[in-house]
Amino acid sequence: MKKQEALVRLHAIDRDVKHLSQITALLQWDQETYMPPAAVEGRSEQLALLEGIVHEKSTSPEIGDLLEQLGSTTAHPMGDADLPEVERDFLRVLRKEYDRAVLLPADLVTEAARAEGLSQAAWVEARKRNDYKTFMPHLEKMVGYAKKKAECWGFTERPYDGLLDIHEPGMTEASIEAVFNPLRSRLSSLVQRIGEKKAPRSDFLSREFPAELQAQFGESVMKALAYDLQQGRLDISAHPFTTTLGPRDVRITTRYFPTNMLSGLFSIIHETGHALYEMGFAEEIRDSSLGDGASMGIHESQSRLWENVVGRSYAFWKGQFPQLRQLFPTQLADVSVDEFYAAVNQVRPSLIRVDADEVTYSLHVILRFELERRLFAGTVSVADLPEAWNAMMKEILGVTPDSDANGVLQDVHWSMGAFGYFPSYALGNLYGLQFWDALKKGIPEVESFIERKDYMPILQWLRNHVHVHGCRYEPGDLILKVTGKPLSADSFISYLEHKYGQLYKL
Amino acid sequence: MKKQEALVRLHAIDRDVKHLSQITALLQWDQETYMPPAAVEGRSEQLALLEGIVHEKSTSPEIGDLLEQLGSTTAHPMGDADLPEVERDFLRVLRKEYDRAVLLPADLVTEAARAEGLSQAAWVEARKRNDYKTFMPHLEKMVGYAKKKAECWGFTERPYDGLLDIHEPGMTEASIEAVFNPLRSRLSSLVQRIGEKKAPRSDFLSREFPAELQAQFGESVMKALAYDLQQGRLDISAHPFTTTLGPRDVRITTRYFPTNMLSGLFSIIHETGHALYEMGFAEEIRDSSLGDGASMGIHESQSRLWENVVGRSYAFWKGQFPQLRQLFPTQLADVSVDEFYAAVNQVRPSLIRVDADEVTYSLHVILRFELERRLFAGTVSVADLPEAWNAMMKEILGVTPDSDANGVLQDVHWSMGAFGYFPSYALGNLYGLQFWDALKKGIPEVESFIERKDYMPILQWLRNHVHVHGCRYEPGDLILKVTGKPLSADSFISYLEHKYGQLYKL
Repeated sequence: MKKQEALVRLHAIDRDVKHLSQITALLQWDQETYMPPAAVEGRSEQLALLEGIVHEKSTSPEIGDLLEQLGSTTAHPMGDADLPEVERDFLRVLRKEYDRAVLLPADLVTEAARAEGLSQAAWVEARKRNDYKTFMPHLEKMVGYAKKKAECWGFTERPYDGLLDIHEPGMTEASIEAVFNPLRSRLSSLVQRIGEKKAPRSDFLSREFPAELQAQFGESVMKALAYDLQQGRLDISAHPFTTTLGPRDVRITTRYFPTNMLSGLFSIIHETGHALYEMGFAEEIRDSSLGDGASMGIHESQSRLWENVVGRSYAFWKGQFPQLRQLFPTQLADVSVDEFYAAVNQVRPSLIRVDADEVTYSLHVILRFELERRLFAGTVSVADLPEAWNAMMKEILGVTPDSDANGVLQDVHWSMGAFGYFPSYALGNLYGLQFWDALKKGIPEVESFIERKDYMPILQWLRNHVHVHGCRYEPGDLILKVTGKPLSADSFISYLEHKYGQLYKL
Repeated sequence: MKKQEALVRLHAIDRDVKHLSQITALLQWDQETYMPPAAVEGRSEQLALLEGIVHEKSTSPEIGDLLEQLGSTTAHPMGDADLPEVERDFLRVLRKEYDRAVLLPADLVTEAARAEGLSQAAWVEARKRNDYKTFMPHLEKMVGYAKKKAECWGFTERPYDGLLDIHEPGMTEASIEAVFNPLRSRLSSLVQRIGEKKAPRSDFLSREFPAELQAQFGESVMKALAYDLQQGRLDISAHPFTTTLGPRDVRITTRYFPTNMLSGLFSIIHETGHALYEMGFAEEIRDSSLGDGASMGIHESQSRLWENVVGRSYAFWKGQFPQLRQLFPTQLADVSVDEFYAAVNQVRPSLIRVDADEVTYSLHVILRFELERRLFAGTVSVADLPEAWNAMMKEILGVTPDSDANGVLQDVHWSMGAFGYFPSYALGNLYGLQFWDALKKGIPEVESFIERKDYMPILQWLRNHVHVHGCRYEPGDLILKVTGKPLSADSFISYLEHKYGQLYKL
């Protein structure tokens, strides 16, 4: 087969696999939004069937043959040097995915998947009953499977690196440590200084805000952010998410709590950030494996940038507050825009990661990173995890969990064997602010745009510099290409110190 | 392989194919209900991909081998006599589907599918411009492909029988003619006698009925009919339909026109009838190829029975009218239940099949059956079709189309090559009333149940006698089994003559 033919065939297989994954995503979207309750069992079988077909197609020996014909090997994934750059990026991504899939023995995959189901069920029960002990043996198994998988992928010395590489291609424990260490100390100090100040007024946030009106405001913000309803839609689900169901079909969800008006709104802005990224991949890569986020963390950088840097800025509320007050004239009668802005940015060390504010959030993540690396280095055992968790919470955030349910058992990730995932959440903050600093050099007047509710210059900049590339570049290369500097925590820390220094008069 | 193992394996393949078809149905449901507009192109590719996988799986040589191992051949589809009855029915259905799929040469399938796409597009244009001539060459091709397919299936002498067999297994042109002939003459006479009488008052039906209130009433009727929202849901789409997305997931759609309050409501009742059938298959066959309607016509018998025999009965409106008037007090202030009942059953010969009333509807179908049989016998040409259509409309219904758009071009079916499909619509009326006569013997007081809005005895009877069987029996066998008599038009004609004799004082 000629090289050109091999490439065409490889793209065809890749497209089929991508389309099947999108079909899987539709089944999941439907399950979370509209599916009638009794359908759940049948849906599981349909999902298992599709996943089987996807696995078969994405691990077919034909892919391996085609990659080799194009010069792509595990050692030199980008393939023959005379191929166009974008095709070499494509080969790199495909080779990595292919190796990752075929290097795992089938019985390990099956066994781990079965154990994962049991583990998740055990976690749900253990959290409900605040009973870490019953979950412990499952967690031990999950750690064991993760280690085995990392070893299969060649990470025998440092298995945790193999797990990190799934979510942040090219990143390692050492490279993450290098940015998390300064972040940790300066955030801890910031949190402590804020803690000495008086908390802003926030009583009005828990007044009654009818869901229909929240939806009206949220949708108007979503549209102002240029989320395109021709190729997307907003629905309600128990947990907000973004999902891509086709090259022109990126949907988001949220939910509304009548006495917590911020939750639904910031979920919309967060998911809109993810969706704008997915909608912005260049046409030529959109329908291939390159049409994907560069990493979990880069994806989070987009959602968090819109949610926090834009959506929790003073300029944003200067622009949006009048409309909000028009919708809720009684609820917000006694509230000024300054008070609202302060309430939206209230900092308070708490036990639960998903409820954390912009300042403390990354500390929750760093704690998990610290525990994961020790788990995989063997310096902390699964049995000692709750104690280590609580000690570190006290050390980093100054609070101690009242129970394991509100401590080590709070997240689903470990029960699913998803180790190495957490760091991406905090890396998202670092990537995001480093992009933002670069953006501000290109658009010095960005705040006045935000104040005028004109978010298009921001989107255009992100689209041109970040979105179009999809996953052509690994996150470390992307950040260097876009900002001219390697990843560091500086931008994020400076941003927080400046913003919260003003807010809390530090 | 032992027989038992072969059976288990055959069921596993059958289940996979069924699940993949349900996944396809989800993609289509989503496309008609919630999918954002720009997603349409990507969705087509996903559908084509899935259809390819379904085709590959359902025509795999392994199925042929397994069928043979179980003694199922084209000549003796039910297989070995020592197998349980339900398994022999399963083999019969599977053998028929398998033969139908594998007997068609791949290039014929591809070629016909491509031509079908062009033909449908040409039909849309031709109807819009009232220009039959531009559609003619496409229709000729469609007839040609249908003939070729029927010949591949062994219907060389009477190709039309091969097409009828797709929709009504076991039925032939001759067996349909035997019931349509008396139906045609007695319906024509009934229509003529009604035409001599004064039309009932129906001005109030086109008053303004807000869609939200229509929905409220429609949903209350749907729930009263025992449509189970635990395993289904009602959504809005341009054309009402029922779709089965899993063993416990049967969804329906409708749409509301503010100045035509009957349309949305009767669509709900009609689709509920289809859905109750799909929800009623016995547990043991629900997740196999036997968990399907016995035929298109049997399916229509269920929807039409609920829509017309129940939903347009005097007893139904005696029960439901008070609630309807409560919802629409001004719109229905000057309307009595008798007037409403008469308006709901107004008979008026018209040009368009889908708008036809209960009496004239079957005549529209008989016209199409007559033309189809002549087309495939070669006694009418595609070129002569418009003229033949108009002449027969005049003869049977006493009206002449003002244009081909409102005549021969009105239906999508022929443009898709779906010949032999139309008769099922009228057969549904015949099956339905023959079931109904049997039901009335079992539940003599059925009208008083309907009047009390207690529809469960009807559903229970249909479930026990018709639904549970799925497609274990061919329609001719089912009707004989359930009613003790072979199919005839008597029940349907007697029902119409009685009902409309009273309504129009004939």
